[in-house]
Order: sequence, then C-alpha cells, then structure tokens
Amino acid sequence: METRKLLMIPGPIEFEPEVYEAMNVPTKSHVAPDFIESFGRSLEMMKEVWQCPNGQAFIIAGTGTLAMDLAGANLIEPGDKALVISTGYFGERYADLLKRYGAEVVILRAPVGMAVPLDIIENELAGGDYKLMTFTHVDTSTAVLNHPEQLGALGIKYDILTVLDGVCSVAAEEIRQEEWGIDVDLTASQKAIGVPPGLALLLVSQKAMKIWEKRDTPVGNYYADWTNWLPIMNAYEARKPSYFGTPAVNLILGLEASLKIILEEGLVNRFQRHQDMSSLFRSGIEGMGLKMIPRHMNLYANTLSAIFYPDGINGGKFISKINEAGVIVAGGLLPDLKSKYFRVGHMGRVNADDIQITLKAIEYAIGNG
Amino acid sequence: METRKLLMIPGPIEFEPEVYEAMNVPTKSHVAPDFIESFGRSLEMMKEVWQCPNGQAFIIAGTGTLAMDLAGANLIEPGDKALVISTGYFGERYADLLKRYGAEVVILRAPVGMAVPLDIIENELAGGDYKLMTFTHVDTSTAVLNHPEQLGALGIKYDILTVLDGVCSVAAEEIRQEEWGIDVDLTASQKAIGVPPGLALLLVSQKAMKIWEKRDTPVGNYYADWTNWLPIMNAYEARKPSYFGTPAVNLILGLEASLKIILEEGLVNRFQRHQDMSSLFRSGIEGMGLKMIPRHMNLYANTLSAIFYPDGINGGKFISKINEAGVIVAGGLLPDLKSKYFRVGHMGRVNADDIQITLKAIEYAIGNG
Repeated sequence: METRKLLMIPGPIEFEPEVYEAMNVPTKSHVAPDFIESFGRSLEMMKEVWQCPNGQAFIIAGTGTLAMDLAGANLIEPGDKALVISTGYFGERYADLLKRYGAEVVILRAPVGMAVPLDIIENELAGGDYKLMTFTHVDTSTAVLNHPEQLGALGIKYDILTVLDGVCSVAAEEIRQEEWGIDVDLTASQKAIGVPPGLALLLVSQKAMKIWEKRDTPVGNYYADWTNWLPIMNAYEARKPSYFGTPAVNLILGLEASLKIILEEGLVNRFQRHQDMSSLFRSGIEGMGLKMIPRHMNLYANTLSAIFYPDGINGGKFISKINEAGVIVAGGLLPDLKSKYFRVGHMGRVNADDIQITLKAIEYAIGNG
Repeated sequence: METRKLLMIPGPIEFEPEVYEAMNVPTKSHVAPDFIESFGRSLEMMKEVWQCPNGQAFIIAGTGTLAMDLAGANLIEPGDKALVISTGYFGERYADLLKRYGAEVVILRAPVGMAVPLDIIENELAGGDYKLMTFTHVDTSTAVLNHPEQLGALGIKYDILTVLDGVCSVAAEEIRQEEWGIDVDLTASQKAIGVPPGLALLLVSQKAMKIWEKRDTPVGNYYADWTNWLPIMNAYEARKPSYFGTPAVNLILGLEASLKIILEEGLVNRFQRHQDMSSLFRSGIEGMGLKMIPRHMNLYANTLSAIFYPDGINGGKFISKINEAGVIVAGGLLPDLKSKYFRVGHMGRVNADDIQITLKAIEYAIGNG
C-alpha cells in the first residue's frame, strides 16, 4: 500500500483517530436512545464551542454552502436589504445566494488580500436601511481574516442581523458569538470542527430566531426551512425521538467525538495552538522568501495560508512536487488569480511536526521546480 | 458490550461490511485522483442500477427530502401545474414542497392502504394542463407500492414530466427508468442503496434536463440549483477535478462499494431476492393472524411492510417487546393512524435468517404483550 500523504488543504483536513472510531460502527436507528443522546449532546456542545449558550443549534446533512443557505433563506424576505462584506470567493457566493431569495444586495469588496475598512462599512450601514450583513471570518479563497467582534458591534449599533460565515474558522479562530452579538455563526464539518464532510452546522441567536418567526412570507427553500428542522433540534435536545429527514447518523457520532476533543483541549488552548502553528508556518514561508496574499499582519488567518508561487514557476508542477514530497496542498480558488497562488490549511489537530513536514515539502518543490 | 440488535426499520438498514470498510479510511481530498475515480464510477454505476443509461446522475450531500427538493425546485416555475399522487405521508410532503416553488398543486389521495386508480389519474391529466406529476414508488408511511411503469406511460401519453420518489425502492423494487419514461427517479443513501444516511441521489432524463435549461426564472432554492451542481457532476464523470461544495467523501466511498455489490448480485437477482424475502415475511405475518395496511396483493411493497398491531395491544409496549427479542422495528408514521400500526423494513442485504429472526421477535411480542 502507498504511504499516505499528509492532507494540508483547507478541508477536508486530517481528523482525529477517535472521530473515525466513533463513526465506524454499524449505523443505528435515528431514534435509538443512545443516538438521541449523541445528537442532543452534540447540539449542547456546539453552544459551548461557539460560545453562544442561548443560541439555537442546527445540525443538518449537507455542505457548508447549505449552512450559508440555512441562514440566507430563513432570514431574507423579498425586498430586504443585505450588505455583503466580501474578502473573496465566498463573499461573492453569499451575495448570489441572498439575491436568490429576493434580497437587494450591496457588496463592499476588499481588494485582494485586504479587508474592507470599518469606516466604509459603518458609512454604508448608516446610510442604508439594512436588515442583514454577512461577512466571512476567514475567506477560504484568500486566507484573509476579518474581525467579527468589530463587525458584531456595528451590527448592534445599527440594529441589523449579522451573519458570520465561519466555515474556515469555527473551533480554530476565536469567536465569542453571544458576547460579540453575532446572530448566525455557520460552518461545515470538514474544517476545524474536525469531522468528515457532510454536515452543515450553525448557531442562531434568539434575536434572529424571533425575526424569523415573524416572517410575512414562507421561506423560499423547502429543505433549508427552519420550520421543518426547529422541532427536530428541540426534540433531540430534550432527548425525545423525532423525524423530518433522516440525520446523517455516523457523521453525527463523529461530530460528538470531535466536539468532546475540542472541549477537552479547551477553547483558549485550541485558539492559541492555531496561532502558534500559523506563526510557525508563516515564519518558515517568509524564510523562503515567499509572499502571502493577505497584505497585513492582522489579516493573517490562523487556519489557512494563501501563498504566491515563486516567480516564474508553473503552479501545477509546483503543487505536484509538494505532493511528491508527501504533502497535499490546494491550488488557488479566486477566478482571476488561481494560477498564481496555492493554499495550505493548518487547522484542527495540526501540530508542529505537520508544519515542519509541510515546510520541507515546499522547500523541496522550490529546489526542484 | 451489549449484543447488537438487528435493525429492521425502513432505513437506515443493515449495511454490508464492505461498505463500512470502504468508508473507514482517512478522508481524502475531494480532488485527489483516486477520489475523483470513485465519484465518477459511482455516477456511472448509478445509471446502471437506475436502468437509465442516458440520464444525468447527481450525488449531493443531504437527506432524501433534499433529493425531492432537487427535483421539485429545479423543475417547477411559479404558476406551473403539478399533480401529486399521494399514497401517504411523503406524497403530502411533495405537495407542500412543490407549492413552495409556486406550483399550483392538485393532490389525488388514495384511501389508506390503497392506490389511486389509473383511470382517475388519467382523467385528471386529460382535463388539466399539467407540467409535472409526482408519485411515490413505495410510501414509507404505508408500505403501499405504486406501479411506475403505468404512471410513466401516462406521463408519455400526456407529455408531462414524471417524478418518481424512489426513496424506499431504488435498488430493491424493479424500475427501468429510461424504458418506462420516468423523468426523475430519486432516493437517499440509507435505504436499499445500502449506505449510511447523508446522500441525496437522483437520476434525471435528458428531456427533463432540457426543460430545466429553458427555465424563465431562476431556481428558487440556491443549494439545490442544478446550475451549481451540473458542471461538478460532469467534471467528476470526465475524471476532472472541480468544486462547488465539498462532497461527502467517506459516504461516497461507501456508495461506490455498495453500488459494486448491487451490480455484482445483478438487478434481476436482487429484485427477486426482495420479492422472496417480502413473501416470506408476509406469510409469517399472516400466519400470526396480523393484518397489513396495503389492502391488495398487488399493493404490497417488497422493501417494507406496514402491519396493524394485534387488537387491544399497546403499540409502544409491543415494539419494546420486539426490541427485547433482539430486533428493532419502527412505529407508525401517518399522523392519524400512527398508534395503530408498526413498520418493518426488509431491504438491502436482508436474508431469510433476518426474516425468521424478525418473525420470531414479533411472535414473542404477541405471546408476551
């Protein structure tokens, strides 16, 4: 058998052995008492990891884009104004998605590698009649980090709903959802949450749930409609059987195992470890003379780095050489720039050995490019 | 460790050891060459299992209801007329779903345990200007079997789109999708397809794809929009990397393994085995003097039985006794009748031993009720 290569893409990532063990059991009935307990505990642990003790948790089979859709479809009614803060590919996707449900969308776009300045955002909010603002914590296409605390504060000041796309951040970058007044914080299982792909995960504030309850129009998306799922989440949390769609049983067993590991490490330790690994990686990269897409120190994500290829080098070959040295990294994702850069994920169970192996593989690619 | 009980509910079912083995590997990149091969092969094998060689296959993370939504949201435009043939809970769900996308829905409801007579359906189609008709192959709530060949023929005669909810039938009940002129045949992974829950699977005729391409309005559901997924499915089938949402990698590896097993058994053998197991189960049940919900021989499903509790017996206790004897069965699902009957799934890898064990457990419950 071929030696397994180290998976250092921005999701799926390397998962803990305990997560695979928890998943590798004969599938249980979705209403078996022990599965109900696992589902209920997972919903409760999500609130701890998200730091949102009074929020409403949802676990639904689907991808991260479904998580975006669960927030967008439920909170937008036709004619609502939405502000999208875009720092890459996923900001643009959110704008498309919100328009689908009838939102009038204004996009504030940052130049590649930059964030949108707060005063520009505030100016737009002050002058417009917005219901909702979305922003990407770490855009997986650029590795640019936004600062949700500041954006949450603007949301409170202008009394709008704030939706944080935390796909590449939850359980790795610090978020205090409730304290910071973020109304929705959403992610997907295959990122720092540490579970194979297939689950959309989100936490919604009571404020947002109340606004949703008062909708005048039905939710545009049937599968994503919280009307279908809220009674189910409430039932599992109350340890009662319920059914709308069959939950992804084995993935949820993996989620329970991973959330336990995250809470055992402790959020403070976990965020610090991600900072340390990210710094270690960055200093290695800078030591090789390579340049990052984010243009300022305070825009560097701790979960992911986006790095320009060395001058005059063929990107495809460069990635193949890294692969030859035992590490899998990802290509670029921004349509206009995808041939110019690559991406390295460093989230979840990542440790200093993983970082060193990855740096050596990149060094090998430079030396043999 | 507790002895594992036999899972005889209508999904999740007992899965093959090879399926669990295929899934229990460290998650690969969704663009790794060997995963692209697994995904592409799965799409190809689906067309064989569905008997729809020229159809468009979709594999998307989600539940069976997402599969229903993928068909409904993409094929309905506001104002379209849709006819729903309802033989239980899931027919009603489809009507709700289609209305969400602006369809004018007419429901033809069968009395519990019956099917809607063909002449009534034909009469309705002849008098109405329908775009689409949905029907449930085996309604999981009643175990009533519809006959898609006859309904497909009506669809051809009146030139409408036919959508078969095959959640409780694909890979167990005979369907020749292309020959019978069925435009969409949809299912979920945790049923007779034999993979843990988390995948929505469907096959769409070229006729339906062409009608979809000519839509005047955008698809109402962003996540379900084929515009997002069609290029991805085409890329994987052409063995090229592509990305819209991260596929549920481990579940798709399980799907590949299960589709291989299904094709190795052969569809003719597999359908025959399901008929045999269903007959065996039914004669046991009838021998105990119990009554089925379906009221005619030709309405009995081969995947599932819905059985009235013996007179004067408490349903909850009855199911607990069956459980005590080592078998897990499901309660009723029809809102008005749920306390009066229970359901036993017999699909996938089910064999005569499983049937005998289940019958003995039911006998035990009768003797100790």
